[in-house]
Formats: sequence, structure tokens, C-alpha cells
Amino acid sequence: MKTRTERIMEALKGRGISQMLVVDPMSIYYMTGVYVEPFERFFALLLRENGGHVLFLNNLFTISEEVGLKKVWYSDTDPVMDYVKEYIDSSSVLGVDKDIKARFLLPLIEAKAAAGFVNSSLAIDLTRGVKDEEEQEKMRTSSKINDQAMACFKALVKEGVTEKEIADQTLEIYRKLGAEDFSFAPIVSFGANAADPHHMPDDTVLKAGDAVLFDVGCIKDGYCSDMTRTFCYKEVSEKNREIYELVRRANEAAIAKIKPGVPLCELDKTARDIITEAGYGEYFNHRLGHFIGLGEHEYGDVSLTNETKAEPGMIFSIEPGIYLPGDTGVRIEDLVLVTENGVEVLNHYSKELEVIEA
Amino acid sequence: MKTRTERIMEALKGRGISQMLVVDPMSIYYMTGVYVEPFERFFALLLRENGGHVLFLNNLFTISEEVGLKKVWYSDTDPVMDYVKEYIDSSSVLGVDKDIKARFLLPLIEAKAAAGFVNSSLAIDLTRGVKDEEEQEKMRTSSKINDQAMACFKALVKEGVTEKEIADQTLEIYRKLGAEDFSFAPIVSFGANAADPHHMPDDTVLKAGDAVLFDVGCIKDGYCSDMTRTFCYKEVSEKNREIYELVRRANEAAIAKIKPGVPLCELDKTARDIITEAGYGEYFNHRLGHFIGLGEHEYGDVSLTNETKAEPGMIFSIEPGIYLPGDTGVRIEDLVLVTENGVEVLNHYSKELEVIEA
Repeated sequence: MKTRTERIMEALKGRGISQMLVVDPMSIYYMTGVYVEPFERFFALLLRENGGHVLFLNNLFTISEEVGLKKVWYSDTDPVMDYVKEYIDSSSVLGVDKDIKARFLLPLIEAKAAAGFVNSSLAIDLTRGVKDEEEQEKMRTSSKINDQAMACFKALVKEGVTEKEIADQTLEIYRKLGAEDFSFAPIVSFGANAADPHHMPDDTVLKAGDAVLFDVGCIKDGYCSDMTRTFCYKEVSEKNREIYELVRRANEAAIAKIKPGVPLCELDKTARDIITEAGYGEYFNHRLGHFIGLGEHEYGDVSLTNETKAEPGMIFSIEPGIYLPGDTGVRIEDLVLVTENGVEVLNHYSKELEVIEA
Repeated sequence: MKTRTERIMEALKGRGISQMLVVDPMSIYYMTGVYVEPFERFFALLLRENGGHVLFLNNLFTISEEVGLKKVWYSDTDPVMDYVKEYIDSSSVLGVDKDIKARFLLPLIEAKAAAGFVNSSLAIDLTRGVKDEEEQEKMRTSSKINDQAMACFKALVKEGVTEKEIADQTLEIYRKLGAEDFSFAPIVSFGANAADPHHMPDDTVLKAGDAVLFDVGCIKDGYCSDMTRTFCYKEVSEKNREIYELVRRANEAAIAKIKPGVPLCELDKTARDIITEAGYGEYFNHRLGHFIGLGEHEYGDVSLTNETKAEPGMIFSIEPGIYLPGDTGVRIEDLVLVTENGVEVLNHYSKELEVIEA
């Protein structure tokens, strides 16, 4: 089996690139298992077709010792970009990370450290978009914790509670279930707040008839989960039930279509058509989904304009929604894994409309 | 009185730069009052000597409407760097922000959008390093809240408490005192943990004889405070008292030297000499201070190698420390403002050794 780094080197070669300077800490972790949060300091992995790869580290960073890679350590007063230059083949083009900053890139360009400088992050992003078996297993585990957490969160919904009071308890629940952290700040939205897909939990008090939307996720062994469920509190109007069932149908119809070879835009269209035909098209104002893994939002989305075809190993979200401003909102989101024959849904929490009576 | 933007344009002119593309959101806020957290999207201010400045905004950003600046809005599917190029004078060098990423910078370089590309952030950083009167007043207010907060934090120190239990209460205290947020995650260290300047609060339980170190700060009206005090719990050994008084003397001696024209390295030396002469030099293993303002760590430090001279309006920290691994640590930190004649200390919380008896 090819290593992740080998897959990336192949993808680079396909783009005519023989060396690349990677600075995204998540991409470096993906290839080496070394995670560093460099803040303002330089931290990079130089991939080299001829000769070994090199990791550049500030001696204020701490890493585990067992990395089988050449390491170049530097201090805050060292001319680190000069050190990097020594390892670059100046007669070839250098692929650079889309995120490398001017203060590191311009000195290399000025020193003519390479024959050209090309943003080559796509080679990494597309490779990271297809998860290997170890990653798939970690994604399953992370989503399993998220399923369990959703049941705990639902149990916090009761008379007089505010969004913030619930949100403030979620991290401890995740930690007790074995997660390291949130994958993103939890969204807990009551009633009309659910109409804003990015609403932050506030002091809104729950009332009968409210939608109760949880868009939540955790990190387990470095991998992210992300799921949305929308409950009702005590009462559910006919219209609220109608839009709930519509969103659920859109979610399930898109998932049913997933198999290798299907263009991702068709998934978006499948979900969107159902909502549009029912007259709610303008209230589903975002893409159907996004890729996810080590990062909560990774490169790649499930949108009307993305013609990329589904491939075994891809993991992304399917999250249709209907948002009625000033009134209510519903979103139902699962993570899915494209398999050899179809799809594996990573979330197992029920999508039946649940009316909370507490 | 010159505006901040005028001061920056002058500093750029002094470096032979007539146009600059700024992407640091704090620098843009500093000049325009517009704050945006752009995440992965492009957000920039193009400064132009001839003709007006231009703000580039994604139409997913929300800003208040009263900005007296040309605004260019773009959507996720627009070729935004083409729009930027239209406003750059291609016959002149373009100053670029040290933080601009390759995915935005390389397209401009490839399109030969300017006659050259130079990291010109120093013109902004040095300007931001000298605070105007409005900023000074906000820094005073932020530190005043920090003084009040320190008294509240000290009151949380009692038998059986853990670092984390105290740290978990600090944000609410800051908010009640009128602050918006932390300026950085609070450091609460007991006993031997105080020997690690970057220790994160954990489940360590307080015991008699421990040092109790608080390194804390908040944000008020956008401006950061940052102060350290080290208390003792119930008992204080002779050695602990000795190093406390040594650090306090180092802090006070450095502050006493501050006035316009003094090289910042002399302040570091003053504090370091006192600690070194007493035999603890190797246990003071960091610089004496850092600049602060809209950011908790801004460009510029107070270190042995920085020969920059103190100027009225500069605000930085003075924070000597002695760290005895596995044993204890002491740090005493104030923010100071260089004035026309000397110095104004922004923190007023006592530096007398306090033994907490609770």
C-alpha cells in the first residue's frame, strides 16, 4: 500500500512538480504524524522527488522523537529561509503551499531559490479528500461519539433553558465520551434563530413550538465529526412538520444517489430539486455539503458547480436545510463515506421528527 | 493631527513605497475601523498614494455602512485578484503585507501586477507600535479592568481548589467587569507549575507553600491588557521570598529607567543584571517584554538584541521572571506607556508579596 506521502508525490508529478514546500500544519501531520502549532514561526515540510524530505523546525517546537525524516532545526535569530534554500533544487519549479505567507515566500523568490513558484496545494487537497482505511475508521469513531453526544444534548432540552446554557455543557459531554475537543463551536438554535445557519448560542429561552437545532461535532484522534439534527419542543405546527419532512426527504434522496462515479453536483441537485419543487428553493441558500477529515472544512464541496465524481474513500456532509427568516429553520446533516458499491452513512442518530416533551 | 493611515503612508514613502496591499485584519481595523474575520476568504485594504484607498470585501462579510472608503465587493465565484490588479499601479513596486498568502500573492506576481513585490509590513508595525491618545486611553481602561480582575482572581484562591477551577471562572469575571473577552487564555499556575512560563491550567490542587501565579489579560474596546502577579499560599519559604523580591526589584528597576531615547535592550539588561548578579541568570530564560495593543503580542520586543529607542506612545510589557524547574516560579509583569518625560505604569495592582491565608 502506498503511503500518503507517496500518493502526494505522484499527484505532484502528474502536475509536473518534483518538489514542494508544505506549510499547512494539518497536511504535515497527515504525512508525518508530527503536529505543531507554529503560530508566527516557520514550520514546513519540503517534499523532494530526488533525495529525502526535510522538516524545518524552530527549536521552541516540541515534537516526539520518532520521526523518520531529516530534520533541520533553527532558532529565532537564524536565517531560516537560507537554510530552506539549500535544500531546494534551483533548476526546477517549486510547488508551494497555498497558505505560505509573503514573509517566507518573497525571500525565496528574491533569492531565485527555484526556477518558478507554483501554488500546488491541489495535489495535497485532492489526496487528502480520499481517506485511507485508517482514516475511515477514525472518522467512524468520531461520528459514533457524535451520535452518542446528540442523545445527551437532546436530554438537556427542557422548560426555561437557554441556548447558551445547553451549549456550555456540550464540551464536557464530548470529553466524557472520549473526544478531545469540539471540531467547531456548537450551534444550538431555538425557534427563529434556527433560520440563521450560523447563529451563535445566546440567551434565547426555549418556548413551546420552537425548533431546536443542534449542529455539532467533535474531534477524536484528530478526526472531525459534524452532524445536525432539528427537534421540536412540545408542539409542532403543520407547516413545521411539512418543512421537516421535506428536508429529511432531500437528505435521504441525496444519500441514496451516492456511489462511485456520480458527480457531486448531482447530489446537490437531487436535494435542491425536492425542496424547490415544494416551493422552498429560495430558503435553501447554501451548498449541500463539504469535505471533512482532519479539518472540519476541507477542500472540496458538494455544490451545483462541483462536477468532481464521487470516489471510494471520500467523506463529506449532506446537509440540506430550509430557513424561514424570523420564523424557523430545519437542517438535517449526516457525514457519508463513498464505498466501492455505494455509500456508508457515518451517523446513525434517528432522522424521525422527535417532539421533546420535557 | 495626522490620521493613522497618513502616518502609515508617510512611513511607506520613507521606504520608497507608494502603494501597499494590507491583509492583516487588525491593521485594517486600525486604519479604517472595519473589523472582519475573513477566515479563508480574501479581505484587503489597498493603500494608494495617488488616488483613494480601496477595501476589497467578500459579499458574505458584514460591515457597518459608514466607512468613507471605496469598497469593491466580490462573490466566491468572482476572480477577485483580477479586480485587485485593476487598482494597482503596475509601473510601481507594490508593498505587500507579510501575512498575505501564496494563493493571493502568486496570481499578482504572475500577472505582473506591479513592478516588484516587497514585504512592507514594518511601515505598519512601527506605526502601530506608537499609540495615539485614543489608543492610550483604551489601553489604560483595559489594564484598569485587569487590575480589578486580579483582585477577584485572588479571592478564588482557597483550600482544595485546582488551577482549572479558577481559570474556568475568569472569563465571567472579566465580562462582569465590562471586558469583551480574554486577550489570551489565562495562565493559573500553582507551585512547580509556575516554573513553566506557558503552563496551561490543569487539575493540580493547591497546597500550602505554593506559589500562585496569574498571567492574565482581557480585551476592552478592542485593546489588550496583560499582567502577571505571583502570590504565595499560606507559607512562604525564605528562598521563595528571596526570588520574589529579586524579580520585583528587576521589574521596578527596569521601569525606573524608561524614558524617551533609552534603548529597549538596556531595559532588558537592567532587569537581567539584577537577577544574574544574584545567581539566578540562567533561570530567567525569556525576553523582558513585548509590545501590545490591538494584538496581545504586537511587533517589537524588549530584549537584549533590540536597540530601538523608547518613544512617547510606545506601550510594552516589563515581565522579568525566575523559574526553578520542578520547584517554583515567580513572574511580575506590568504594561507601561512611554511618556514625554518618562513612564506611566498602566497596572496599579500591588507588587508587595501577598500571602493568601484562605
